[in-house]
Amino acid sequence: MSNDPNLAELVVRVHEDIQPHFGQGRVADYIPALARVDPRQFGLAIVTCKGETASVGDCSVPFSIQSVSKVFTLTLALGRLGDTLWQRVGREPSGSPFNSIVQLEREQGIPRNPLINAGAIVVTDALLAGRGPQATIAEILDTLRTLAGDPRVTIDAEVARSEADTGYRNASLANFMRAFGNITNPVDCVLETYFNQCALRMNCVQLARAGLFLANDGIDPIAGQRVVEAQAVRRINAIMMTCGHYDASGDFAFRVGMPGKSGVGGGILAIAPRRAAVAVWSPGLNTAGNSLVGALALESLARRTGWSVF
Amino acid sequence: MSNDPNLAELVVRVHEDIQPHFGQGRVADYIPALARVDPRQFGLAIVTCKGETASVGDCSVPFSIQSVSKVFTLTLALGRLGDTLWQRVGREPSGSPFNSIVQLEREQGIPRNPLINAGAIVVTDALLAGRGPQATIAEILDTLRTLAGDPRVTIDAEVARSEADTGYRNASLANFMRAFGNITNPVDCVLETYFNQCALRMNCVQLARAGLFLANDGIDPIAGQRVVEAQAVRRINAIMMTCGHYDASGDFAFRVGMPGKSGVGGGILAIAPRRAAVAVWSPGLNTAGNSLVGALALESLARRTGWSVF
Amino acid sequence: MSNDPNLAELVVRVHEDIQPHFGQGRVADYIPALARVDPRQFGLAIVTCKGETASVGDCSVPFSIQSVSKVFTLTLALGRLGDTLWQRVGREPSGSPFNSIVQLEREQGIPRNPLINAGAIVVTDALLAGRGPQATIAEILDTLRTLAGDPRVTIDAEVARSEADTGYRNASLANFMRAFGNITNPVDCVLETYFNQCALRMNCVQLARAGLFLANDGIDPIAGQRVVEAQAVRRINAIMMTCGHYDASGDFAFRVGMPGKSGVGGGILAIAPRRAAVAVWSPGLNTAGNSLVGALALESLARRTGWSVF
Amino acid sequence: MSNDPNLAELVVRVHEDIQPHFGQGRVADYIPALARVDPRQFGLAIVTCKGETASVGDCSVPFSIQSVSKVFTLTLALGRLGDTLWQRVGREPSGSPFNSIVQLEREQGIPRNPLINAGAIVVTDALLAGRGPQATIAEILDTLRTLAGDPRVTIDAEVARSEADTGYRNASLANFMRAFGNITNPVDCVLETYFNQCALRMNCVQLARAGLFLANDGIDPIAGQRVVEAQAVRRINAIMMTCGHYDASGDFAFRVGMPGKSGVGGGILAIAPRRAAVAVWSPGLNTAGNSLVGALALESLARRTGWSVF
Repeated sequence: MSNDPNLAELVVRVHEDIQPHFGQGRVADYIPALARVDPRQFGLAIVTCKGETASVGDCSVPFSIQSVSKVFTLTLALGRLGDTLWQRVGREPSGSPFNSIVQLEREQGIPRNPLINAGAIVVTDALLAGRGPQATIAEILDTLRTLAGDPRVTIDAEVARSEADTGYRNASLANFMRAFGNITNPVDCVLETYFNQCALRMNCVQLARAGLFLANDGIDPIAGQRVVEAQAVRRINAIMMTCGHYDASGDFAFRVGMPGKSGVGGGILAIAPRRAAVAVWSPGLNTAGNSLVGALALESLARRTGWSVF
Repeated sequence: MSNDPNLAELVVRVHEDIQPHFGQGRVADYIPALARVDPRQFGLAIVTCKGETASVGDCSVPFSIQSVSKVFTLTLALGRLGDTLWQRVGREPSGSPFNSIVQLEREQGIPRNPLINAGAIVVTDALLAGRGPQATIAEILDTLRTLAGDPRVTIDAEVARSEADTGYRNASLANFMRAFGNITNPVDCVLETYFNQCALRMNCVQLARAGLFLANDGIDPIAGQRVVEAQAVRRINAIMMTCGHYDASGDFAFRVGMPGKSGVGGGILAIAPRRAAVAVWSPGLNTAGNSLVGALALESLARRTGWSVF
Repeated sequence: MSNDPNLAELVVRVHEDIQPHFGQGRVADYIPALARVDPRQFGLAIVTCKGETASVGDCSVPFSIQSVSKVFTLTLALGRLGDTLWQRVGREPSGSPFNSIVQLEREQGIPRNPLINAGAIVVTDALLAGRGPQATIAEILDTLRTLAGDPRVTIDAEVARSEADTGYRNASLANFMRAFGNITNPVDCVLETYFNQCALRMNCVQLARAGLFLANDGIDPIAGQRVVEAQAVRRINAIMMTCGHYDASGDFAFRVGMPGKSGVGGGILAIAPRRAAVAVWSPGLNTAGNSLVGALALESLARRTGWSVF
Repeated sequence: MSNDPNLAELVVRVHEDIQPHFGQGRVADYIPALARVDPRQFGLAIVTCKGETASVGDCSVPFSIQSVSKVFTLTLALGRLGDTLWQRVGREPSGSPFNSIVQLEREQGIPRNPLINAGAIVVTDALLAGRGPQATIAEILDTLRTLAGDPRVTIDAEVARSEADTGYRNASLANFMRAFGNITNPVDCVLETYFNQCALRMNCVQLARAGLFLANDGIDPIAGQRVVEAQAVRRINAIMMTCGHYDASGDFAFRVGMPGKSGVGGGILAIAPRRAAVAVWSPGLNTAGNSLVGALALESLARRTGWSVF
């Protein structure tokens, strides 16, 4: 098990490993902009704490990062609010499909963790803090551009609009938590912000780069900037490990062994603490709603590198 | 952050850190043998992959390891059955209090993971495999003695009997899974074996030593013996991380960041992969049923050593 | 047991029976207009199929009928849509507190019955049928005035506005069902109509009179008009019996034995088939959300008349 | 709508009405003795409060009454314990499939009502009251023979044995409630009694006759004996109406409108208060576990007689 693999060779080998599975899985189809994505695409990018990078496949094709954005809004909220955030959202796995409202009722409007929809909506509400949606959306976009070191990160207006048009479950969740007093801004403002953050559009290289501080104790090693406290990073990684893949989080820990967060657009951000950040993208989803080929690629990568934390 | 701490000093410092909390928490009182344990006791033992050891406090006082035993029966079952075991038990966090039968109903008698009671009962059923309880209990005890390198590991007959006398919830779970065909031996035999494995009596030094193979890719570095495949160990550690502390597993990952498994007797086994196994014991439990002082000690230890995997 | 009691004496006796309980229970306080109602008020009115009436106490004081309105919108919807309505709403007791969203998730957005909030919102959506809220609200108000034989029935604008301002749970339910395709009009229109129907303001005499067709096989015996088919009435009564008091429906059947529907304003409409309609009102609620004194009054009345259907 | 129908003609007409449906539904197959019953059988018997009887079809063929027995053990327990029984069992519809253990967990081991399995097991435990199973079984059998006016009522030993051999769910329920302290006799004794009461073997004529006191305010009009207080009968009928058909109780009230109790053997006992008791039997079950043809026969009978209480 090598700890310092030849990165260029590594991404090629992983690419080969998963080639037989290209096109497997089912592309999300609840909005047109996602439904029309070619399922056979696959991208992978690695950025190490030393600043080395390697990438392969469709690593420069931008995609909708969707729920991967939850990691970044959580980082922003923790940086601003610190541990008071945990009065409004838990940090336990949900043990139910990702949109489930059941546990929310049993637990009085406190979502189980910040990486399921309900929890991320609370985090967004905390970020709003009385500001309008536009200012908050601008802050999120600006943060992602800075972290990615690339001003070309954008928000896909069509996706944001489609999310709003079909987002009845999220509207239901937000109203439900509002009834318990755990949403404090107007529901419409919270949802507008949330739908825009889900519509962030990045490619694998940008995404791995943006997540690098999570592999480096909170400091972006390339920019030489502290993003967030080291302790906060350990906690974010812990939550990604236990909650990052909805009701398949245990399986991801079991097979890959790296903290990770997936999105319904087919992207996954995975962290090898003290080593590297990895972004993978392939649009076909498995039955748990996570990128089928992406998870296989990370499994291959973990096996080849020993980057499992276990 | 030192990766090679002075072990002797480390355990003293941790001991000091948690002294203000001694006696906090609530001792399990559902059986007399547990209820009468002095809550102010505290023990800690560390065994490193290099064979160094350090311990402090009541580290030689034997206690009832209870659910910590689930890690060892899982290891035995994985060694014997391999991945076919996963057809009968999942590997996802349960998201509900530890005895919950709800999810079991929804998921057709397949328990969520092998570290909750229902899952451990299935693992025990798999170990029985048509043998009588006595042979299986003997095998489990023998395994623990070998792993601990100490023939003084015993089963507490009074505890086993008390568990049987009050074990109606476990009897309910076993019958429930039998109705779904996921228990194959007679329910009475399964429960007798299960109640005996829960009654294993060990001290912190023995427990840390017995769990060392989990920190060392499946090889016991002191005995120089492979216990189980490296891949199986990574998977056991992953399950301990996501499921080892019932519905407080996320919180433990968040605060400690090491794979761990707790028992209602107040013991916790925690693993620092490639570094060390740690056993801690203190009988007072927090509201989630895990050792209150024990978890604080591991939090202090992780902070002092950087042994969090995140 | 007399089937033709002296009505005037009957209401006096019932009034005496429950006097010791006046003021018991807890007035609904989620909106100001309900919270400031004097809890010591009590009204009772009986209208028989022969056209006799008797009333006592605060029987002329108008109150917010709230969920009692669900019976009348159900009648309207059944009259218009017939049995196709049952494709969108069930007729089984909910077995959970009245706002529960759990069952709704398990059953794919189909509410258990038309007398819980979710079910009544679907019924309102069915009544809207593409019309605007104003036309639908006008139709509902007009129907109640006709049935009550009294144009003074009104909608309390302050209550309707307050319901809208605090109705996050109902907004959550409506959005949730919209996500399953079981709400077809814009959520805002459905909720506006629903909040207005809940704000109907009637007194006991008007309410008993308006419900009389339910005691008379669907024909209003005083106006000599058929309101709805006899079979539909038997079905509405059956649903009132099994589902009319949220999760205390079984207890109401057990103690009173008459089909009934309660509202959080303290009103209850109860039906003695082929005999009479009874309206009772007292604002203090029991823990299940039904009028405490009102239910006791109906228990007394059923005992004195033998009007239990059992 | 005649209230005094020509009984002989009535049963012939009902028989004709449902003939097209003979053989529909699915015979219970969890035990051999039930699985081998010919699904095309159908029997119907009516006994009026005036002592008139009429029957048709396979009305003299004995069948396993299964859960219909719950009505009679409830009567026995209410007669002996009175309202203290309600401290141990509720009277609300369960809102879930009949064996569900979920609600039992949420409500601390108190079953929702005495007509679901869990509730009937508690009632049986109350009847045992420290006696052995044999004495209790003998009392139940003796009661049924007396009520039926026929000493040929028996218990089918093969069925009782098969129930015991496959009764893991009921064993799970009993152990579960024992864990909450709501079973007080040894679980084995409770289950032995329960499995025997389910194995009662009667024909339609005997069953209608045995249930006649429920139509006559608690007095057996033929024997001239009071069986239980009038108030208790009203309550039993109320519970049959709201809970007698598991999660299809609302539908039965909606379609038939008579208090009733079904069994998995295909029998249904239905009550027309102050008029008659009706027993129907046909082994094919609908998806809710109730006799498909039996329910249709009662629907026809209610339509022809106006015996719906609504």
